[in-house]
Amino acid sequence: MGEIEEFGLRLGRHFVDDFEWVTGAKITIEEYGWDRIGVDGADHGHAFSRAGGGTRTTVVTIDGPSAWVVSGLTDLVVLKSTGSEFWGFPRDRYTSLTETNDRILATAVTARWRYAGTDVDWAKSYADVRRILIESFAVKHSLALQQTLYYMGEQVLEAHPEVAEIRMSMPNKHHFLVDLSPFGLPNDNEVYYAADRPYGLIEGTVTRDDAPDPGRAWQAVPGF
Amino acid sequence: MGEIEEFGLRLGRHFVDDFEWVTGAKITIEEYGWDRIGVDGADHGHAFSRAGGGTRTTVVTIDGPSAWVVSGLTDLVVLKSTGSEFWGFPRDRYTSLTETNDRILATAVTARWRYAGTDVDWAKSYADVRRILIESFAVKHSLALQQTLYYMGEQVLEAHPEVAEIRMSMPNKHHFLVDLSPFGLPNDNEVYYAADRPYGLIEGTVTRDDAPDPGRAWQAVPGF
Amino acid sequence: MGEIEEFGLRLGRHFVDDFEWVTGAKITIEEYGWDRIGVDGADHGHAFSRAGGGTRTTVVTIDGPSAWVVSGLTDLVVLKSTGSEFWGFPRDRYTSLTETNDRILATAVTARWRYAGTDVDWAKSYADVRRILIESFAVKHSLALQQTLYYMGEQVLEAHPEVAEIRMSMPNKHHFLVDLSPFGLPNDNEVYYAADRPYGLIEGTVTRDDAPDPGRAWQAVPGF
Amino acid sequence: MGEIEEFGLRLGRHFVDDFEWVTGAKITIEEYGWDRIGVDGADHGHAFSRAGGGTRTTVVTIDGPSAWVVSGLTDLVVLKSTGSEFWGFPRDRYTSLTETNDRILATAVTARWRYAGTDVDWAKSYADVRRILIESFAVKHSLALQQTLYYMGEQVLEAHPEVAEIRMSMPNKHHFLVDLSPFGLPNDNEVYYAADRPYGLIEGTVTRDDAPDPGRAWQAVPGF
Repeated sequence: MGEIEEFGLRLGRHFVDDFEWVTGAKITIEEYGWDRIGVDGADHGHAFSRAGGGTRTTVVTIDGPSAWVVSGLTDLVVLKSTGSEFWGFPRDRYTSLTETNDRILATAVTARWRYAGTDVDWAKSYADVRRILIESFAVKHSLALQQTLYYMGEQVLEAHPEVAEIRMSMPNKHHFLVDLSPFGLPNDNEVYYAADRPYGLIEGTVTRDDAPDPGRAWQAVPGF
Repeated sequence: MGEIEEFGLRLGRHFVDDFEWVTGAKITIEEYGWDRIGVDGADHGHAFSRAGGGTRTTVVTIDGPSAWVVSGLTDLVVLKSTGSEFWGFPRDRYTSLTETNDRILATAVTARWRYAGTDVDWAKSYADVRRILIESFAVKHSLALQQTLYYMGEQVLEAHPEVAEIRMSMPNKHHFLVDLSPFGLPNDNEVYYAADRPYGLIEGTVTRDDAPDPGRAWQAVPGF
Repeated sequence: MGEIEEFGLRLGRHFVDDFEWVTGAKITIEEYGWDRIGVDGADHGHAFSRAGGGTRTTVVTIDGPSAWVVSGLTDLVVLKSTGSEFWGFPRDRYTSLTETNDRILATAVTARWRYAGTDVDWAKSYADVRRILIESFAVKHSLALQQTLYYMGEQVLEAHPEVAEIRMSMPNKHHFLVDLSPFGLPNDNEVYYAADRPYGLIEGTVTRDDAPDPGRAWQAVPGF
Repeated sequence: MGEIEEFGLRLGRHFVDDFEWVTGAKITIEEYGWDRIGVDGADHGHAFSRAGGGTRTTVVTIDGPSAWVVSGLTDLVVLKSTGSEFWGFPRDRYTSLTETNDRILATAVTARWRYAGTDVDWAKSYADVRRILIESFAVKHSLALQQTLYYMGEQVLEAHPEVAEIRMSMPNKHHFLVDLSPFGLPNDNEVYYAADRPYGLIEGTVTRDDAPDPGRAWQAVPGF
């Protein structure tokens, strides 16, 4: 059946190469995952349930003979119940945030990485970049979501020479410790409330030093 | 930590029993699932990713000394790529639907089941009802989504005497075969498009013959 | 073109009366509003923009010869920048809410009202009930959103004998005053933040003393 | 209270100018509209309902001493019930779309325009650009949504020298005529169904010939 990157390139080429007046194309694709339903310990032959763990994406941009592929994932919701600190940050007269050396760290990862070329084993590359993003989020003792973001990107670039650059958008989905002291109750990191607003939107790009010029790769990429 | 049903009952009792002017309560709770992130083949100790497979729910209704529990799940997206037919349905002068004996069957299950009492092993009951709903969707050769719905409910009632009644709402998420014949191309159940509208919203209730009176169990239950 | 209630009744009758095995029907309809686009001070003949102010709804339930109509509106977002207090509420050992005699009151109204019969001028009744809901929200000096809800329902019942009962769901969309005192700044009800969670979901029903029995009117009504 | 563009510039300056290690900033703001509630023919003093007609946006980007402002609106849903054609388009062996010279044209406009500088009467400029977008959508007899998009942008640039460039994203929200001929019924442009998918996403940029270089203006702008 092929991979979404391959399909995007082929579809774009169809329009750009077959019609004189079409000089460029952008193709954006989302791929939803499905797990086989298990029945009596065995995978069912034709029944599936929608998988969690985010949606695979690609954005293919074609400009005449050139082509760029930016693949990624969205809605990958991850959480660490400990192993996360935030302190020592600059303070000015408006700073009210309390320092902490033990907090919940939660986010919904959107990542988009630009391939240096188009001669890539798309399926294998995607699966491994995704694995690295998740595992590096898990294992990194976090001193800031910014640091975790950088580490995740760095791990991807180190393992995948075919990736020139990776951009990530990670809203800090705060879980605030509820103050139970007015009720004479302890709260030893047990009861939190998940706050929607205000929140920090942590975004960043990790680029290889010798990355080729992005050209129009990002032109068609939806923002985070 | 206890189950959401237990917590709902306790929270409701707190309000109804401690305040003279509070005579009833409804408590609705959603529980999101988390999978441990695997690193090097082992589950990480404190890192998680949001699980797929739907959200667990409960609605607890209290009226003086009485209490009812309606548990359920929502957003369980399932699909069968074959093993589904739809034909022989009544036709009148407005019927335009084509009969088929091989189609994709897809839906997002919302199910809510009413417990006959409150002396229940909530975790065990929930896990097994969920398993039965998914497996029975998978194994039943479907002649209609209505039939599948009935079968799913019946299987739950047969295995779980503590469940008095189960209601399900299952939008028929149509996947229509694309007609490629104008282009001289075959389409042997390969290319579909997922249509949003119009769609059939299949809803039904399967009730045990000797189910106890629902009382106010459903009064506070959000519709499907 | 007729009103949505009329269309729902006719559609339901088509199924229940024309097919022996169909004994009941529920029809739910949403109607989106459009305003004519003004050009040079005059309404354009065939160009429209989607109106704000909520969506009109109806739920028609038919059971053999009986029929019930529950009309309503959703997503009517309203706000009072003053004229709202909340104090004197019961306190127990867990109460932490501060009393206030000047706050922002904001909500998104969902209202559903049951008609006593089906011989109604639907358009006129809808328009006026909607007007009363909005105006009574505006003019009532609020001591609690619960009080405002009751007042809104009462005003509808007093003016519209054809309405037997009205149910409303109004999430308390909190706007909390930001504490600027750590920065040595005053905040005289000027800067708020709109909090999503936690919030109070205020729901209630106002019923005429001599309202006819609801029958199955509410059976098919989606929850709030 | 000032306009959102002014506030964004000031907030960005606060961070970039007050902290040595902060060299740039992006600020994105959404502004929701409110209409005063009318009571007895007069505007109420402190009660409001959420306005329709889209949400005002701005994205301010600061890079050292430089600043760019991209303002816009989203979710402006508009529709023409006639005055729209689509025919004469290129056909290849995969083209199946039927030509029409009378159709419904509907879209949800997202527009973002880049200001050439920052010395602008923001409120006045926004209000008039918005007016032009809506009126030009209404009055232009449409031969294609692409043509309408270009016309809307052109009208803005002609009237507003302070705008260097405008980008628009307008999904073609198709309304397909229902084929009632199998039932022996006419359908003279009366009954449509609003299809969600597939749809055409029409996007385009209209730029002034002598527009200044965009610099980093678009770097932080969320995609459409």
